[in-house]
Amino acid sequence: MVFPAPDIDYGALHAECRGRLFAELNAADALKNKDVVHVALFQGGAASFRHDTDHEHLFRQESHFHYLFGINEPGLFALIDLRTRETHVFVPRLGLDYEVWCGRVPSNSEYAAKYAVEYVHYVDELPAVASRLLLANGTEKAQLHILSGVNSDSKRAIVPVDVVAALGDTLATNARIAVNTAVLYDALVEARAIKTELELALLRHVNTLSSLAHIDVMKRTRIGMIEYQLESLFLAYTSFEGGSRYAAYTCICGTGSNAAVLHYGHAAAPNSKQLSAGDMCLLDMGAELHCYTSDITVSFPADGVFSTRQRAVYGGVLAALTAVRGAIRAGVEWVDMHLLAERAIVQALIDAGIVLLAGATLERVVDLEVGALFFPHGLGHLMGKDVHDCGGYPHGRARLDRKGLSSLRMNRTLKKGMVLTNEPGCYFIPALLLPAFDNPVLAPHLNKDLIVNEYLNFGGVRLEEDLIVTETGCENMTKVPREIDEIERVMASGRSYQPESEIQ
Amino acid sequence: MVFPAPDIDYGALHAECRGRLFAELNAADALKNKDVVHVALFQGGAASFRHDTDHEHLFRQESHFHYLFGINEPGLFALIDLRTRETHVFVPRLGLDYEVWCGRVPSNSEYAAKYAVEYVHYVDELPAVASRLLLANGTEKAQLHILSGVNSDSKRAIVPVDVVAALGDTLATNARIAVNTAVLYDALVEARAIKTELELALLRHVNTLSSLAHIDVMKRTRIGMIEYQLESLFLAYTSFEGGSRYAAYTCICGTGSNAAVLHYGHAAAPNSKQLSAGDMCLLDMGAELHCYTSDITVSFPADGVFSTRQRAVYGGVLAALTAVRGAIRAGVEWVDMHLLAERAIVQALIDAGIVLLAGATLERVVDLEVGALFFPHGLGHLMGKDVHDCGGYPHGRARLDRKGLSSLRMNRTLKKGMVLTNEPGCYFIPALLLPAFDNPVLAPHLNKDLIVNEYLNFGGVRLEEDLIVTETGCENMTKVPREIDEIERVMASGRSYQPESEIQ
Repeated sequence: MVFPAPDIDYGALHAECRGRLFAELNAADALKNKDVVHVALFQGGAASFRHDTDHEHLFRQESHFHYLFGINEPGLFALIDLRTRETHVFVPRLGLDYEVWCGRVPSNSEYAAKYAVEYVHYVDELPAVASRLLLANGTEKAQLHILSGVNSDSKRAIVPVDVVAALGDTLATNARIAVNTAVLYDALVEARAIKTELELALLRHVNTLSSLAHIDVMKRTRIGMIEYQLESLFLAYTSFEGGSRYAAYTCICGTGSNAAVLHYGHAAAPNSKQLSAGDMCLLDMGAELHCYTSDITVSFPADGVFSTRQRAVYGGVLAALTAVRGAIRAGVEWVDMHLLAERAIVQALIDAGIVLLAGATLERVVDLEVGALFFPHGLGHLMGKDVHDCGGYPHGRARLDRKGLSSLRMNRTLKKGMVLTNEPGCYFIPALLLPAFDNPVLAPHLNKDLIVNEYLNFGGVRLEEDLIVTETGCENMTKVPREIDEIERVMASGRSYQPESEIQ
Repeated sequence: MVFPAPDIDYGALHAECRGRLFAELNAADALKNKDVVHVALFQGGAASFRHDTDHEHLFRQESHFHYLFGINEPGLFALIDLRTRETHVFVPRLGLDYEVWCGRVPSNSEYAAKYAVEYVHYVDELPAVASRLLLANGTEKAQLHILSGVNSDSKRAIVPVDVVAALGDTLATNARIAVNTAVLYDALVEARAIKTELELALLRHVNTLSSLAHIDVMKRTRIGMIEYQLESLFLAYTSFEGGSRYAAYTCICGTGSNAAVLHYGHAAAPNSKQLSAGDMCLLDMGAELHCYTSDITVSFPADGVFSTRQRAVYGGVLAALTAVRGAIRAGVEWVDMHLLAERAIVQALIDAGIVLLAGATLERVVDLEVGALFFPHGLGHLMGKDVHDCGGYPHGRARLDRKGLSSLRMNRTLKKGMVLTNEPGCYFIPALLLPAFDNPVLAPHLNKDLIVNEYLNFGGVRLEEDLIVTETGCENMTKVPREIDEIERVMASGRSYQPESEIQ
């Protein structure tokens, strides 16, 4: 059975998204000068290939463009008249060759109906339509707004649309038209940071799909498998049952000591280890549907039963996860949530005898950045069309200098309607721990013998769930087993599990 | 059970590939002036991302670089001294951050052992090593060979290495060093066109994996499924059973009339139709392992039993497939093979009453390009590291002007050791057929009533297998059911098929 998609009106979803952009532009007073024509120009993603070959990558739309227009096809442009809110999408003029190789080309009115945008034209008509919108009234000045900015997460700049190439020399150099790069990017990023109800409905659906896939993988995991087989099972479930043709990110399937490699699974570390008895498995995997992501991590013992050491580390991360989930609500500072999680993890490490108070208080040990040795990444990030969604660092907020906090992908006050990940972790990373043993500030607080003898190859535990911030708390979209006895029960049930019968 | 990989010495495989390059350079007399130092500089692929985000695509090495060195990691360079054949690979100098996020960095000697290359250095050592190789002898001139050329299949140019950025100003502008872009590309392309024994062993393995996956999909196909579920089943099999993390190309799962769209399955036509009784299914899917591809197409009725019309069209394509396979051997012209296939297809269309002789001979009807209406693509292409491998158009060979032949990805005399696809097809493409009814030359040979009433929504049939050319014939690496009764038997067996029991 195919996991049924919610009955979402995608045209309405993206109209709401455009509404979010208009609201942010109004809030920023960007368009307050009503004597000026304001038009926004957007460019969608282009087809891309493996190097010089004709191996075309499966296209995935640029996220800002998809947010506004919902069309997953390459080579598009769009114009929005920001006063009338008229929306114009421009599609390539495709010929017979395209039709033979790639299929029937819808008419522009079919396009408009399919994607619920008001006007669809050919790309070669862009200069004429832009001219009409920008120079409608013979005396007005016009501002052409384009996206320009740096993604605070990747620190990489968006490639701005080439106005001359898009609109032609004549229009691009018209003295009445000023290109404005100051307003649109920040407004759009802020729009995306707060999800609409329809976006939330879709995000819940993708999260449920990924949750079910994680449970399926958990049930099928066996000693002797290769890590990439867990990836394979997850992708098989999300694609077969849910129609997800894109992973939100490369699957991280770290087992044993690989679970301590935060972004394991890339080409140079390709999920290729065989599972052994005693391994912890850390699986960080998420499906994507209609360019909306999910981001879920589970950790469990490969053989289905937690050892004492596994219980200790897992319990600490679960305590952090639960504490953060209980504290989140609109108005809370995300940095405080990170520190809350860090304290819970350090407390568990103290309880296990791994971290030593050595006469200091818990707060003092945390201040010394001992926790960041074991929890070196940020607690979580905004999530939406991108798994690390834009908007984590609004104006006035900067990266912090302290270890752990410096890795935070978000530093802001939480607002209702934000979607974010809660993902504390505790890892035994030799590259961090071995130098710390020689650090006079840190060494007194580390039980070197215990760590070296019993934990250096432990790997790590990460638990990640996706939350919607509400006025009074949060909604957890992720439904996977978290309690130790629950995981052991699910894994035991997997030994006699017949998923095939569910598929047919 | 994991489908066992052949016991291939990858270091030896790539050393043989470098040997192929040296042989081609010698054959071309490129290095005949022994008083000149000849050094080749190569650049591997770079990490790539979704637009401005930090969503990093799963890296896949540039094929030329992988052919020579076998390393699937980003940011590499290499130098080969073409006289001594000394090979130097250059890896990025990665720090603590990389180690925490991406895993332990091997030492350069571990790298050298793992990939069986003689010398491994850091990228920042490239200028010094290049200087030593190029200026070894104080009086000699030196030629620095780099790749420069246009892929004859994609018609896209390779991006040449930036010599100044790679080697530094001083070396790049040294008067004794001349950059040579004339020799290396053609020699490397020709090297890749003839496979080594170890390459063939790996290609056979990938082909067997993809063949088994196709059979698995055939058995599991049911009316009511969505096309993307067939894609999902294929990828699940090749990844779970064979460890293939990359598809050789986006899966084409066209059913019903979608089977007439040659490259269906892209983002704008995303394998999203539900299978109906009476549909033909055309599945063109291939796994990739260690950057070696496979490319297999099967066609079968969704409900497991061929109708009369399906038998007629399928039979014609099968006759073409078999005729070509029987005729291929070293020395044969590929264009002749295409025409052989086209004649077989036209004959079947005549037999089915779809194409009319109308007083002309078969040869005359073929000459009028009637066959190309139903078989508009080329018969096949070289295959290897890229699914459409380089080398299809050597110097002196050009694209032909005739319909069908103009789409050929290869125009050359076959040689022993070439690997190519044999993929005849017969499609009912409204965009080609409807205008042909009004063409006075073509119309007399088309049974318009029959086509419009019974075939316009038929879709199409393509059968594709991967062959190794030998002196006396060819070896078919693809082992999938091809005879009609065989397909019906396999699909019937699938109704009671329990693949889960095989996996566990």
